[in-house]
Amino acid sequence: MKRLNTTSPQFAAELKAVLARRGEQSGSVAEPVRAILADVQKRGDAALCDYTERFDRLTLTPAQLRISEAEIKETADHVAPETKEALALAAKRIRAFHEAQLPKDLDYTDEAGLRLGMRWTALDAAGLYVPGGKAAYPSSVLMNALPARVAGVRRLAMCVPTPDGVLNPLVMEAARLCGVTEIYRIGGAQAVGALAYGTPTIAPVDRIVGPGNAFVAEAKRQVFGHVGIDSIAGPSEVVVVADGNNDPRLVAIDLLAQAEHDEQAQSVLITQDEAFADKVVAAVEEELKTLPRAKIARKSWEDCGAVVIVRSEDEAAEVVNEFAPEHLEVLLDDPRAFSLKVRHAGAIFMGRFCPEAVGDYVGGPNHVLPTSRTARFASGLSVYDFLKRTTSIETDREGLEKVGPAGVILAREEGLDAHAMSLSERLKKG
Amino acid sequence: MKRLNTTSPQFAAELKAVLARRGEQSGSVAEPVRAILADVQKRGDAALCDYTERFDRLTLTPAQLRISEAEIKETADHVAPETKEALALAAKRIRAFHEAQLPKDLDYTDEAGLRLGMRWTALDAAGLYVPGGKAAYPSSVLMNALPARVAGVRRLAMCVPTPDGVLNPLVMEAARLCGVTEIYRIGGAQAVGALAYGTPTIAPVDRIVGPGNAFVAEAKRQVFGHVGIDSIAGPSEVVVVADGNNDPRLVAIDLLAQAEHDEQAQSVLITQDEAFADKVVAAVEEELKTLPRAKIARKSWEDCGAVVIVRSEDEAAEVVNEFAPEHLEVLLDDPRAFSLKVRHAGAIFMGRFCPEAVGDYVGGPNHVLPTSRTARFASGLSVYDFLKRTTSIETDREGLEKVGPAGVILAREEGLDAHAMSLSERLKKG
Repeated sequence: MKRLNTTSPQFAAELKAVLARRGEQSGSVAEPVRAILADVQKRGDAALCDYTERFDRLTLTPAQLRISEAEIKETADHVAPETKEALALAAKRIRAFHEAQLPKDLDYTDEAGLRLGMRWTALDAAGLYVPGGKAAYPSSVLMNALPARVAGVRRLAMCVPTPDGVLNPLVMEAARLCGVTEIYRIGGAQAVGALAYGTPTIAPVDRIVGPGNAFVAEAKRQVFGHVGIDSIAGPSEVVVVADGNNDPRLVAIDLLAQAEHDEQAQSVLITQDEAFADKVVAAVEEELKTLPRAKIARKSWEDCGAVVIVRSEDEAAEVVNEFAPEHLEVLLDDPRAFSLKVRHAGAIFMGRFCPEAVGDYVGGPNHVLPTSRTARFASGLSVYDFLKRTTSIETDREGLEKVGPAGVILAREEGLDAHAMSLSERLKKG
Repeated sequence: MKRLNTTSPQFAAELKAVLARRGEQSGSVAEPVRAILADVQKRGDAALCDYTERFDRLTLTPAQLRISEAEIKETADHVAPETKEALALAAKRIRAFHEAQLPKDLDYTDEAGLRLGMRWTALDAAGLYVPGGKAAYPSSVLMNALPARVAGVRRLAMCVPTPDGVLNPLVMEAARLCGVTEIYRIGGAQAVGALAYGTPTIAPVDRIVGPGNAFVAEAKRQVFGHVGIDSIAGPSEVVVVADGNNDPRLVAIDLLAQAEHDEQAQSVLITQDEAFADKVVAAVEEELKTLPRAKIARKSWEDCGAVVIVRSEDEAAEVVNEFAPEHLEVLLDDPRAFSLKVRHAGAIFMGRFCPEAVGDYVGGPNHVLPTSRTARFASGLSVYDFLKRTTSIETDREGLEKVGPAGVILAREEGLDAHAMSLSERLKKG
């Protein structure tokens, strides 16, 4: 864990070191991924079956790639009732927030008499990648699938690797809750290839979302352009801005909640109160004694964690904007006033009773958020990821008379005579 | 030019051939681009000066990379007054449409008592790539720069190669009109690298937009993730849906207005009236006799053009949705009714007096649009490209009591104990 103080002459350099992108793609998987994608395009289902045998120790025929409705139901039935209820509450709240997000069309006639419009329509089909094994999070299924459903996507195809053939009951229950239309037991770059290019068994989709390992991330990068993709997520991060009126143990737990994700996760405390910072650091050590995932959390905290001592809330906000963090907790008396100073953050959690975990599960807003400082230009997953816009212009002769002549001048300046004629010849018509 | 008829048993296969992606990236420039980007990261301004000398035959010192205000003004002053007026009208209309696009924030308290929000903020800095030489279109400067300005981007850095040192007056005038904050006389992958990673002279930006050649497109693909990029544009396309009540010559000119862009551009006529189609095809031949860019337009029309005969408007709409065209002209009695059957199109032009060229210059909506069937999942350039969203959750103890317990259950099911504790330990507090 690094300690920084804005009063230090080395502060800028030290902050830069802490901000250095962690877990940057090495690019070393580009070639194997290219080969897998080409193979899926060439051999289709046979390639999917071969890779699934090799990577997931599972022998399948093409007809078995899709998980049957009966299997989904049977597996999901193993989920305990209270967990089903918790998932249902989360789904209800996530759905409601994303419904509030739905944008409105534009349609108006301007002063020149041209009717201008912008219409939002849903993608026909989306693909959802869900990691297998221990990283299979049902909350991630909800967060990726529900925005697509709310946007109105009719076909939602999910791919989840099932090493040794084991299905995850929570993932199946979450998929059922969200109305996923089809589920395939495949993973890795081959699953991304199948979703992007299609096979005889799996129809292609228009956009692929969802987290995955380095192979999945590289495959998404390579199919980008042929289909849409979501952003390629890096390790998770939280910045906690806290004053001395907080319980140091709760702040420590919040920092560890991020650190327990992954050894490259980053937890940062920003405070004006150095004595409070010391108490938080001590509490982190104390909690690490009993936390089940202490090994991962300790490594994350030691390698990537940071405590930044600042002199004012304005300075804290400046440091936050440098981090452009995925998650920002504001544990201050007036968290909203502080939040308005923040220009770059994926999601903000305000108030001493609002830890980041609220947003992971039951808050409503999406937990798929921009990492590695990409909140400077990127946003969390939303209904916008599953919608696209069509603009429109409608005019009669009168409207064309008002705007056409300027268009003729510009088209001629650009040397595009047919463009100019398409305007000028219409203006000549009686 | 291909002729297709939906009554043919080969129609599906023939349509697929016409839809086959034209001008797909060969990927052959990936390695040289990687080398240039690495060199710009390593050597900064010196690398920029070297590449500019090599590719643009222009010897510069780092201090000369930026085009001075005086040079911009002096160059722009050569633009004729009527052209300045035409550019100003276009800018005014584009600005107004993009202002209408600006989205609203969300801020509400839901029935559980949680205050949920979504706030839109502008990127700090955007980079605008403008091609040099003959492909330097002032309209493209307006279409790329104005959405950024309307979104509220404070810093807008433009890169334009100036082979042999020649500045384009129209491009300088357009940049001045849009409030571009700085202009650099560099192009190619090296310009993309400078905008993405920064050099001592050029501060990095958060997102890079604008068209370019294969090197520029590949460089944008490679820096994607470190910064945002716009979509990678393919050859331009138009689909014209017309009945027999149109002037065949005007329809022919509209088809040629697309074909004159580029040998790989695609112009498609969809009609129920075969005799009308024949007249349009004959009119295309007639216009090609005098069109200045006839060589390019003829090659495009012959290689990529198509006429599709359909039996009904519904069938026409189905074919349009297969094309998912960048531009769609609807030259029918009730163009709006037809447009509502279209799920996938970048921009729609409605009415017999609304050729696509209206949208290229003076309509208001953006002319940077998704090509190569990507309108299935992508949209035209807009203020959204220069904005990002921060979601927020605020709750007190009462709200946490309502949603927290479900979060605890889900966190435990996912094996994330610190997540669960961050909720449960707060709920224990008095």
